[in-house]
Amino acid sequence: MNASFRFERSAVDGRARGFRLSLPHGVVETPAFMPVGTQGTVKALTHRQLEECGADILLANTYHLMLRPGGDRVAALGGLHLFAGWGKPILTDSGGYQVASLAALREIDEDGVVFRSHLDGSAHRLSPERAVEIQERLGSDVAMVLDECVRFPATLDDARTAAERSLRWAVRSLAAHRRADQALFGIVQGGAFLDLRRENTGELAELPFQGYGIGGLAVGEPRDLRLEVVDLVAALLPEDRPRYLMGVGTPADVLDAVALGVDLFDCVLPTRNARNGSLFTSAGRLSIKNARFADDEAPLDPDCDCYTCGHFSRAYLRHLFQAREMTAATLNTIHNLSFYFRLMREIRGAIASSTFGAYRRERLLAFSRNAG
Amino acid sequence: MNASFRFERSAVDGRARGFRLSLPHGVVETPAFMPVGTQGTVKALTHRQLEECGADILLANTYHLMLRPGGDRVAALGGLHLFAGWGKPILTDSGGYQVASLAALREIDEDGVVFRSHLDGSAHRLSPERAVEIQERLGSDVAMVLDECVRFPATLDDARTAAERSLRWAVRSLAAHRRADQALFGIVQGGAFLDLRRENTGELAELPFQGYGIGGLAVGEPRDLRLEVVDLVAALLPEDRPRYLMGVGTPADVLDAVALGVDLFDCVLPTRNARNGSLFTSAGRLSIKNARFADDEAPLDPDCDCYTCGHFSRAYLRHLFQAREMTAATLNTIHNLSFYFRLMREIRGAIASSTFGAYRRERLLAFSRNAG
Repeated sequence: MNASFRFERSAVDGRARGFRLSLPHGVVETPAFMPVGTQGTVKALTHRQLEECGADILLANTYHLMLRPGGDRVAALGGLHLFAGWGKPILTDSGGYQVASLAALREIDEDGVVFRSHLDGSAHRLSPERAVEIQERLGSDVAMVLDECVRFPATLDDARTAAERSLRWAVRSLAAHRRADQALFGIVQGGAFLDLRRENTGELAELPFQGYGIGGLAVGEPRDLRLEVVDLVAALLPEDRPRYLMGVGTPADVLDAVALGVDLFDCVLPTRNARNGSLFTSAGRLSIKNARFADDEAPLDPDCDCYTCGHFSRAYLRHLFQAREMTAATLNTIHNLSFYFRLMREIRGAIASSTFGAYRRERLLAFSRNAG
Repeated sequence: MNASFRFERSAVDGRARGFRLSLPHGVVETPAFMPVGTQGTVKALTHRQLEECGADILLANTYHLMLRPGGDRVAALGGLHLFAGWGKPILTDSGGYQVASLAALREIDEDGVVFRSHLDGSAHRLSPERAVEIQERLGSDVAMVLDECVRFPATLDDARTAAERSLRWAVRSLAAHRRADQALFGIVQGGAFLDLRRENTGELAELPFQGYGIGGLAVGEPRDLRLEVVDLVAALLPEDRPRYLMGVGTPADVLDAVALGVDLFDCVLPTRNARNGSLFTSAGRLSIKNARFADDEAPLDPDCDCYTCGHFSRAYLRHLFQAREMTAATLNTIHNLSFYFRLMREIRGAIASSTFGAYRRERLLAFSRNAG
């Protein structure tokens, strides 16, 4: 790795691992959770609030930013950090996942994918080279290769075709990548087929990526199957590179994947759930819509030290939610993200003190409860 | 006034005046602007953000709160300050204005008004006594009497009927009011009829209110007529009591009314405009939707020291607005409210240094420009 990038081990506890990931815009202690700032902001929060919650790195979506305001515009304005006024690390995805899930009229071939924007129907092309180019213009700390992700369930043939093409795209992405101040991560594919995953991981691990995404999961497969895949893939990836489980997941999912040696996570769950009134607490999830909170003077989570829990009752938060106040989304998002970041801090602490196994069991039990 | 309430003069400059209004939950330097927190929050802001903008007092709407979550519920939860987690002063309106503008099927008679909730059609009654009772349960620092406001234009007969009934309701409100830790303000009515306003103000000023609202304006009347009414009424109100021009207004309206001796203002303009992308700057208003801001690296207002102007470009704010991010509403609201609070600080400073006349002329010129 170039001098801007370091990935240094700080602790090991079984397969769980604590690392320090140094990026051009700052340091990220792992295991870490990356909040999703699709269009250059986490929904309902200012960056200051996001930092107060504990965020050290932000994920932004290339698909959304290439369509609006556009990669060239962001580059002309000094790159995504300057444009968005976010000074800490940013990871951008390649845009491939959103093309597959949001765009209309996709055509995929060996060169890449042609699609129509969900905003205005305009035609766009994304290839491995183009995805790298746009992310270089955005200037994120970490760029991801364009890959092809199959839905669950897929046939072995479809999964193999996509995984093999993704591997060829990964090679092209490496060849296209120029910025020395940006890391490029490859992405393992192979659906829910263990042999295919083993093969794909082995080949990808031989390529000189600065980190590896585990893609194509959290797309509808059963939890046990997902864990089997993560178990296998994480064991085959290089020890000295970050492993990023893309789009995962619940607090329990995070605990399970950390136990298998995963370092990085992203998921819309804490932020989307917050906007829908579904809140994570140390006693389990609760829905703030529930009428039984109308007169409840307690904070969302007595164990939480976030701004929301320090200042507002469940009764007030329920009132704001029922009254459809935007402030409800803000206060709920502050809480849910603070919950995730605290979870990650505790995970890192448990790994450092070699108590992760006990910590994980205790937390999984708590998370399985329903707090209302 | 009781010991919790003091209104002490700090400066005079022509008819413009600087006072210090002491209320049970804090001190408000006047002239002051009260942001509108309809349902117990200013839309798109947390209380912390609102305080950082410079708010010293919050206005809340009795109509909305009596319907949801309900006055009894708020009282059981310790009153509006505790319920909403806002420790500074609160002024509540009587609910009358929203009943007239939002509720369906109103019937008004000498006793009060019967209306159906805009939320669920349920029937409710508001009388002078009931409006006082609900506001006592809410526990605001300042309560307003129930009044009847006529639209513009109204006939003299209709305006007289409403003003005379409002005066009788004011007497009943005083008789009903019990809380020693809450001020009660009367409200001048009389439409756009100067003789009627003179008469109504004279009679109201003889009643022992702790302050006086100037109501029934900003309902569609021409600016010159509004100023004539304010000019007349402000001169007839007691020197030693706060004068509150209800629902006003633009920065220019505020400057004009301060020149006539008004102390308190509230208006949805800065917050509603912010959510619509219309922003106040020292060079005039601008619409952030405008395509010419797409590549503009400058802050909204180079003269502004708010969080938004200190951290984000017009290009980014336009992007967030176009992308319909809630964060756009938050950042725009922070800016517009900071603009209003800075205006009020500057007004108070100009009065203190006996330069208000020159300050007002200079600012009116700047505000008359269109910044885009």
